[in-house]
Amino acid sequence: MYGKFLVEGDKLVRELLTSHFKVDAIYKLHSANYEVRNRATEVITVNDLELRKISTHENPNLVVAVAEIPNFNSQIPNPKLEDGLHIVCDNLSDPGNAGTIIRTADWFGIEKVFFSENSVDIYNPKVVSAAKGSLFRVKCSYIDLPNLFEANRHIKAYGTFMSGEDIYTTKLNKSGFIVIGNEANGISPELLPFITDRITIPRFGKAESLNAAVAAGIVMSEFCRK
Amino acid sequence: MYGKFLVEGDKLVRELLTSHFKVDAIYKLHSANYEVRNRATEVITVNDLELRKISTHENPNLVVAVAEIPNFNSQIPNPKLEDGLHIVCDNLSDPGNAGTIIRTADWFGIEKVFFSENSVDIYNPKVVSAAKGSLFRVKCSYIDLPNLFEANRHIKAYGTFMSGEDIYTTKLNKSGFIVIGNEANGISPELLPFITDRITIPRFGKAESLNAAVAAGIVMSEFCRK
Repeated sequence: MYGKFLVEGDKLVRELLTSHFKVDAIYKLHSANYEVRNRATEVITVNDLELRKISTHENPNLVVAVAEIPNFNSQIPNPKLEDGLHIVCDNLSDPGNAGTIIRTADWFGIEKVFFSENSVDIYNPKVVSAAKGSLFRVKCSYIDLPNLFEANRHIKAYGTFMSGEDIYTTKLNKSGFIVIGNEANGISPELLPFITDRITIPRFGKAESLNAAVAAGIVMSEFCRK
Repeated sequence: MYGKFLVEGDKLVRELLTSHFKVDAIYKLHSANYEVRNRATEVITVNDLELRKISTHENPNLVVAVAEIPNFNSQIPNPKLEDGLHIVCDNLSDPGNAGTIIRTADWFGIEKVFFSENSVDIYNPKVVSAAKGSLFRVKCSYIDLPNLFEANRHIKAYGTFMSGEDIYTTKLNKSGFIVIGNEANGISPELLPFITDRITIPRFGKAESLNAAVAAGIVMSEFCRK
């Protein structure tokens, strides 16, 4: 299954089929029907037991599709970007967080999410599920982050820290990288020289930190509000 | 284990021991040491294999504690609340979301989180883990939500919907219930009559919805910002 990933459940497979992703095969129960635009997509009717064997869920919902992992710009050594908001995930490890960040980016109209190569596999079934259909719309790619920042010195890099400029009152550009660090360790030391703006979400209570996906959501919301 | 719950891992158990929660027992490896203030807490040294049997993790981290579920105000039929921000979770079903909402409430200094009785069990290990230490600080309780709203007509109830007042520009009280609905179905029909203010997080992109914990985080952030 190199270069492929699973998409499970009726709703998600329907979204997949309206996307630009290549779909190799659809394994569906007899009762379910899917309209396939591409003749290269095989549609195979299976029984309950077979579907359960293919699925990663105990109780699969009607269908499992095999799709091809797209290759956006991870192979371009120095991807020059246009202005705009971009999400950068540095060593993000939790699949639920990765999927939720992709979904939130899609809500806020952010088109690109970059992941460091040591981040979680975004085609793992938990990410696919948490991202809902957003994985098929947002361009997600793995990339060498120092190279990305080097090639895009014209774009500010905003990193969230425990102390920094108050996101509610500081000026936020319309264009920027929003850099999200690892759940336990934050932004890696080797990326710190690329961070142009240190921002912080003010704390009013006692929690030591925020969940990475919640913090990312609040930061995206602030950028879009302003 | 009726009325008890497990707290797993070194960091979380240390936070538990500094909280007001009653701790019945601590099962720890020989190499770990915990200072116990209450003589009623049993400290039992176990070996690797025993710890793995007690723990819900495959690779437990040094310690598992058994704590008592506190009883805040779920048994009071009509709990009159003082002004302030309170979180209300209506039929919330995902443990990760529940824990994350408790953690986010703690970050924003919100002291009470109410759950409808059909919500996820907040003492389930996944909630405990996602809440980090915040479960020991924020007062969480299960309660009949219509009763809660009935008894507190002086407090506004803000519900998040796909269409409503733009949270960025609408006036938000310092006092209010922030009502978070079920992940798939939103706020239950029987609670709608109690919602005084319909608010919405503006959408700039294409995602159908936001994750419940992210939406809750953005709303809490907006209340605290203003």
